[in-house]
Amino acid sequence: MNKETKLKYNEYRKIIDEHLDKYIGVFYPESIYESMRYSVLSGGKRLRPVIAMETASLFGVQIENIIPIACAIEMLHCQSLIHDDLPCMDNDDYRRGKLSNHKVFGEATATLAGDALLSYAPKIIIDNTHNVNSEIILRVLKEFFLAAGVDGIISGQIVDIDSEKKEISKETLEFIYEYKTAKLFQLAVRSGAILGSASDSQLDCLTLYAKYYGHAFQIYDDILDVTSTLEDLGKTPGKDADVQKSTYVSMYGMKQAKDQVLFLCERACDILNSNNIKSEILVEIVSDLAEGVKKCY
Amino acid sequence: MNKETKLKYNEYRKIIDEHLDKYIGVFYPESIYESMRYSVLSGGKRLRPVIAMETASLFGVQIENIIPIACAIEMLHCQSLIHDDLPCMDNDDYRRGKLSNHKVFGEATATLAGDALLSYAPKIIIDNTHNVNSEIILRVLKEFFLAAGVDGIISGQIVDIDSEKKEISKETLEFIYEYKTAKLFQLAVRSGAILGSASDSQLDCLTLYAKYYGHAFQIYDDILDVTSTLEDLGKTPGKDADVQKSTYVSMYGMKQAKDQVLFLCERACDILNSNNIKSEILVEIVSDLAEGVKKCY
Repeated sequence: MNKETKLKYNEYRKIIDEHLDKYIGVFYPESIYESMRYSVLSGGKRLRPVIAMETASLFGVQIENIIPIACAIEMLHCQSLIHDDLPCMDNDDYRRGKLSNHKVFGEATATLAGDALLSYAPKIIIDNTHNVNSEIILRVLKEFFLAAGVDGIISGQIVDIDSEKKEISKETLEFIYEYKTAKLFQLAVRSGAILGSASDSQLDCLTLYAKYYGHAFQIYDDILDVTSTLEDLGKTPGKDADVQKSTYVSMYGMKQAKDQVLFLCERACDILNSNNIKSEILVEIVSDLAEGVKKCY
Repeated sequence: MNKETKLKYNEYRKIIDEHLDKYIGVFYPESIYESMRYSVLSGGKRLRPVIAMETASLFGVQIENIIPIACAIEMLHCQSLIHDDLPCMDNDDYRRGKLSNHKVFGEATATLAGDALLSYAPKIIIDNTHNVNSEIILRVLKEFFLAAGVDGIISGQIVDIDSEKKEISKETLEFIYEYKTAKLFQLAVRSGAILGSASDSQLDCLTLYAKYYGHAFQIYDDILDVTSTLEDLGKTPGKDADVQKSTYVSMYGMKQAKDQVLFLCERACDILNSNNIKSEILVEIVSDLAEGVKKCY
């Protein structure tokens, strides 16, 4: 990412961090709020909310109108990580370089903190999105629930878990990547675009961009699971092999996985170009991914 | 409940059952939909959605406008039961006379089915509430998220779990009953009333009614936990004593617990009477509770 784009990215990120901190206070019973804050304020890259903010800005949305939605998307992402890390799911002890939520607060509180975030996030949107037509807010909320539920990450996670220790088809793998990963990126671009009254064709184009980016992102994640360390990754590497999970890497081999990331990155940028959507950030997060993969060759 | 009121109650209940069945289809990946359906279509009394429908009808709301909200409230109730029953929480094997969700589908799917319902419910409201002003829908959604999250059942459950094997204050017990139980009844009356553009004082009065009813309901539940069988109760009795949970019964004794239920039931009816809110169903569900307790003397 070039210096100027990096600066803009970090400005967005700072706004997100400040608002997440502000939105989630600590009240009685403290443990639930502390558990929510532990995972939400854990210093992630804030990729999804930054994408939402950048997309909204492309359509002239005032920054204060997209902030609550961007924060809600990050809360949803954190909710899915807390629950995915539970012993009954992926049983992961580390996340973003820290102990996972249930290792610190226990399984009951971690489960409830995830549940709490699922209600807290849309409430943040309703409470803090001012000067936006109610129909538009309802449209964004619907996108949120689609991505959060059986039309989104839940189905991705279910099929992912069901696929452990099993041969799966290429279509099933595609489904997992689409639902478990791409849907949240799609939510990010779509929320920003809907708030900015984007046309249907602009919405389609951004959705396709997020699909390519999401798939590339997940394959890269699979590659790093093989090649990386706990320190670099912030979570336990080698998990996929441990639970005999089929990934793009295990099904197609490392070389083809890397090639596919580069191919998808190219398509993601092409779709922006050919639709005249000009965003340094949207282009450069894709380039960063491609650069990362190239280093693995 | 007299015959005529019972008939009306069962009419509501039938509408709820039919719509819950219709709203939750089965698609790929089937296991998550089946897990959701298993708990939602498990033949509960549908008390909360019936209360929502009855309250809405008092304010002249067309029945088709309250149905999606009533169903969403039942889904939320089921979500809380699925997660409460998990081994890391109350670890209950039975619910509504059947094996609990995780005993049939496993912990991972049960956790995800609960998560899924939390997004599915508000999506049902947005998709199916037609001819209602968007501001009103947003107001109802906000009530939903308040009841579902840290301002509602989540905080009730956290404090409940934290209170096991501990002496707790009367205030803490009140908090648990208020948040874990009363908040969902309050959501039911408030949603119906908001949809019917009730005045603030009517809203306050119904909220207070639901508070008294909710507390009475929970104390009665504690009494039944001591006096009832698995067959009658549909869930494992004696759980509170097993985990050394403080309840109204353990803290005040059985006699005072029963007296308190009757006292709260009287206050619930009084508040309706003195505010001229005339509903056979709202009165008779309270009477039924009082009758049930009288049989325990």
